[in-house]
Amino acid sequence: MIQEVESHSHHISRQFNIELEDVKTRMLEMGGKVEKQLHDAINSLVSLDSELAQRVRDDDNLIDTLEVSIDGQCSRILARRQPAASDLRLILAIIKTIRDLERIGDESSKIAKMAIRLSQDGDLPKGSGEIQHIGELVRHMVHNALDAFARYDTDSAVAVTDEDEDVDEQYSAAIRAMIDCMQEEPAKIDSFLNLVWALRALERIGDHAKNISEHILYVVRGTDVRHGGLNR
Amino acid sequence: MIQEVESHSHHISRQFNIELEDVKTRMLEMGGKVEKQLHDAINSLVSLDSELAQRVRDDDNLIDTLEVSIDGQCSRILARRQPAASDLRLILAIIKTIRDLERIGDESSKIAKMAIRLSQDGDLPKGSGEIQHIGELVRHMVHNALDAFARYDTDSAVAVTDEDEDVDEQYSAAIRAMIDCMQEEPAKIDSFLNLVWALRALERIGDHAKNISEHILYVVRGTDVRHGGLNR
Repeated sequence: MIQEVESHSHHISRQFNIELEDVKTRMLEMGGKVEKQLHDAINSLVSLDSELAQRVRDDDNLIDTLEVSIDGQCSRILARRQPAASDLRLILAIIKTIRDLERIGDESSKIAKMAIRLSQDGDLPKGSGEIQHIGELVRHMVHNALDAFARYDTDSAVAVTDEDEDVDEQYSAAIRAMIDCMQEEPAKIDSFLNLVWALRALERIGDHAKNISEHILYVVRGTDVRHGGLNR
Repeated sequence: MIQEVESHSHHISRQFNIELEDVKTRMLEMGGKVEKQLHDAINSLVSLDSELAQRVRDDDNLIDTLEVSIDGQCSRILARRQPAASDLRLILAIIKTIRDLERIGDESSKIAKMAIRLSQDGDLPKGSGEIQHIGELVRHMVHNALDAFARYDTDSAVAVTDEDEDVDEQYSAAIRAMIDCMQEEPAKIDSFLNLVWALRALERIGDHAKNISEHILYVVRGTDVRHGGLNR
């Protein structure tokens, strides 16, 4: 009888692990889709490809739907399995991470909106080089954050938070350059402002990648490292 | 014996209810502090009061600390009490709401930063009237969202999501007015851009108030109403 109970509880725990792995995999798949959205959004802007930009805008719904679906899956696991310790932390970290991913999708969609506006103007104003450059940095951060989550790699997670400082500095420099451009060509303020919004979206995406890294540290270490509590 | 067990489980459930009420009260208290931050940030900008603005910036740490503390309290309740159904939804909604509140605090801090920059310039450019007006709308939204959460009032929650559309329209109009101002006075682009950032922060705060309303609907109705699934 005891053996049967043990075998049953072993079965439940194996089933539970499968469920945890499944929801984590779905989160990482959502991450892959969001990475692609970001990639396409940046490309659509620097190449003034309004069709690609429109596709990014259209696909944002898919990301939203995924977030709601994975969030629901997490709630059901919490209700049925009542996980504790690191399993509980994993579920809570997934709930927070998909929210950051959804926001990255949203910001990518904003970049695509700016691409559409700029393609209507016909030519790309100065400053698109900065978009490309900061875009690469930020894509790198998002990719590395997701990769670190897949492998519970805290060193890589900490490295992502370091990259965010670099992005913030380059963002500030790019905004100052934009202000100079606007003052030189006030007639094009509208166009430059579209680039400013795109830069702002990239800077926000960097923040979300940093958040994701902090969620990983929470899963692995069991302590909340946000707001300056980062322990290297 | 059965009576003893029942009395014990009654005791546990009463104790659990006290814990749930306590964490909800702490969330609402955090909400009150965030409302004050937003109020002070807007006032510091429209009156160019850099001392008040600096206080808002300094107090942002308190908000961050509160979020981490309440988030930890929620995790402990999940681990110890393993709530189900509406109790579980309440805890998950509180975890999400305090994140939105923390973001509102952050955006208020950005408004205060713009107030400090503008006070260094010495005079307020045109457009501060829009800040005051949209600021009032957004403060109203945050207040009503928290009030609706306190009373689980779904009608008020839905009303907040409606207000967000109004804010978005007025925000777009204000940005267009800012672009005109910049084109008329290119030398003051820097100052105007500070107002643009403050407007942007207010628009984001409106989004967070809308999010909070959606969390309330999730607690009461048990369905995720985000991304267009709002059922009136």
